[in-house]
Amino acid sequence: MLKAEYKTRGLVPQDVIEAVSFDKPELKEGQVLLEMLAAPINPSDVLTLTGQYGILPPLPAIGGNEGVAKVIEHGPNVSSPDIGQTVLIPMGIGSWSTHIVADAKVLVSLPNGVDPIQLSMITINPPTASLMLSEFVDLQKGDWVIQNAANSGVGSYLIKLAKLRGIKTVNVVRRESLIKPLLAAGADVVLVDGIVDGLSLAKRVKAATDSAAIKLGIDAVGGSATDRLGGTLAEGATLVNYGAMSGEPCSLAPTVIIFKDITVRGFWLAKWFRTSTPEQQKGVFATIIGLIATGKLSAPIHATYSVKDIKQAVTIAASGQRNGKVVIVKE
Amino acid sequence: MLKAEYKTRGLVPQDVIEAVSFDKPELKEGQVLLEMLAAPINPSDVLTLTGQYGILPPLPAIGGNEGVAKVIEHGPNVSSPDIGQTVLIPMGIGSWSTHIVADAKVLVSLPNGVDPIQLSMITINPPTASLMLSEFVDLQKGDWVIQNAANSGVGSYLIKLAKLRGIKTVNVVRRESLIKPLLAAGADVVLVDGIVDGLSLAKRVKAATDSAAIKLGIDAVGGSATDRLGGTLAEGATLVNYGAMSGEPCSLAPTVIIFKDITVRGFWLAKWFRTSTPEQQKGVFATIIGLIATGKLSAPIHATYSVKDIKQAVTIAASGQRNGKVVIVKE
Repeated sequence: MLKAEYKTRGLVPQDVIEAVSFDKPELKEGQVLLEMLAAPINPSDVLTLTGQYGILPPLPAIGGNEGVAKVIEHGPNVSSPDIGQTVLIPMGIGSWSTHIVADAKVLVSLPNGVDPIQLSMITINPPTASLMLSEFVDLQKGDWVIQNAANSGVGSYLIKLAKLRGIKTVNVVRRESLIKPLLAAGADVVLVDGIVDGLSLAKRVKAATDSAAIKLGIDAVGGSATDRLGGTLAEGATLVNYGAMSGEPCSLAPTVIIFKDITVRGFWLAKWFRTSTPEQQKGVFATIIGLIATGKLSAPIHATYSVKDIKQAVTIAASGQRNGKVVIVKE
Repeated sequence: MLKAEYKTRGLVPQDVIEAVSFDKPELKEGQVLLEMLAAPINPSDVLTLTGQYGILPPLPAIGGNEGVAKVIEHGPNVSSPDIGQTVLIPMGIGSWSTHIVADAKVLVSLPNGVDPIQLSMITINPPTASLMLSEFVDLQKGDWVIQNAANSGVGSYLIKLAKLRGIKTVNVVRRESLIKPLLAAGADVVLVDGIVDGLSLAKRVKAATDSAAIKLGIDAVGGSATDRLGGTLAEGATLVNYGAMSGEPCSLAPTVIIFKDITVRGFWLAKWFRTSTPEQQKGVFATIIGLIATGKLSAPIHATYSVKDIKQAVTIAASGQRNGKVVIVKE
């Protein structure tokens, strides 16, 4: 039994995280022992290790923030969920671990028999993608959205969720090799960022969308990429930032903000969890779980590792050259 | 009779503008001849000369976009406004001229006997300041606002309009020498931008306002100044950009946009004119004219020039080291 723990924070995330022994405590009244099946490494997890995230847990802490597990032992006076039931672990509990002790009452049961790796990612990226498509602009069927970092976890879900709603996507990537896979995944348009063949991103977007008015831009990169995205938007559009993969502040020309009347907003899922009602949350998750269970929604996986290889897993997850999510799985 | 004309646009604004002869045309039915009393040089006028503004008039064009004049001759079938009446010239007509021919019908009469220099600036800066205080955040008496470029025309009006409404202002400037004059003009707090005595702007704002929640930030500078302003704002606040005195794109950390849930908006007066009703416009101007006529609202004047010295006037207006507005006046 192992857990991936960090006692300090530091700018090289793989240096602070390490696999240490998990000593199973005596189960108390109402508790269950869970065996972890899968837990992803999200960008926010890496920023939590480096100390750059908006909320930081007290140290020492276990890495990871979401995942799915199987109930393997009941503590005193526990009758459900059944032994063997697949459950979602509560957020903020530290999911990069082979085993977790949790209160039976707070566990949400998930359908058994669905790929645990796909299920393990439902609490963060799919609701982020889904809510960014619905919380800022009232999009109708046939409307266009543009996003950068289109190959990220959120980006992949956004392509699929938009398609299911009849919304068209322009997807901005950094490598030409990503164009084909994203088109195959349902993207309407995929373009490499910056100047290509002497043409700005804005000009190429205009050509590829027949000059459609793009009402929503979704930025996970920051730096000058924000400005390039802003340049593609229609007058009165909204630009939502939810990440800073470039490590740079968002840059946006006043000529875009002022003359094109662009509204810039931020999206933070943790805040949505604090301010939304349990009914709103259930609604969002029920839809997502349904889509994953029926195979309509999935994200590409770059690699899987077990807890003992956490340093290597975090190294790969923190690097920019992935083609999907890194997931910690049962050995 | 002279007019300040430009036939091309160029990055050195004083190189493209020049005083040329104004040949008075025969007045047609319904027209009047106006003698200009005063017309300011606004930052947007300079950007129109350099070609960096959102709307550019066809060339050749007369510089300037607002001002006041006196009716000195009636064309055929004109009976009002009276000869000698002070009037506001219509926007977009080119105000840096000793004389202007205009349709009598579109002229708005202003109170005679009020300082024409102060009256000449009412159509752009005061409504910009007034609307930025009212269009984005529902501010109550005692609420705090922060602005940079506090020594600009808009900045000076904003200090006074906020004070008249019981709203408190933090004013960010680049030079310590501006602190005293702005405090004397009604500013509640004046701080030099950047790090001072090892303390960030955000820390000094906290100390000076007793940690007040600042709900509105007003940015005319762009570049890293936008980020420093953003860092002083309360969670859920709005940051309004209306200019780019730094010449750089607005820079804003995703940690501010996302974790503090800051909304970034732009303000462009020309758009407000296009989208507001005549009643809304009359309401805003009636208030401003009343405040100026009674001496409650005024802006500092750096220097006045006549049309023949337009190159020198534009040189000074385009430089950063002014202590007030440059105004073109009757010789």
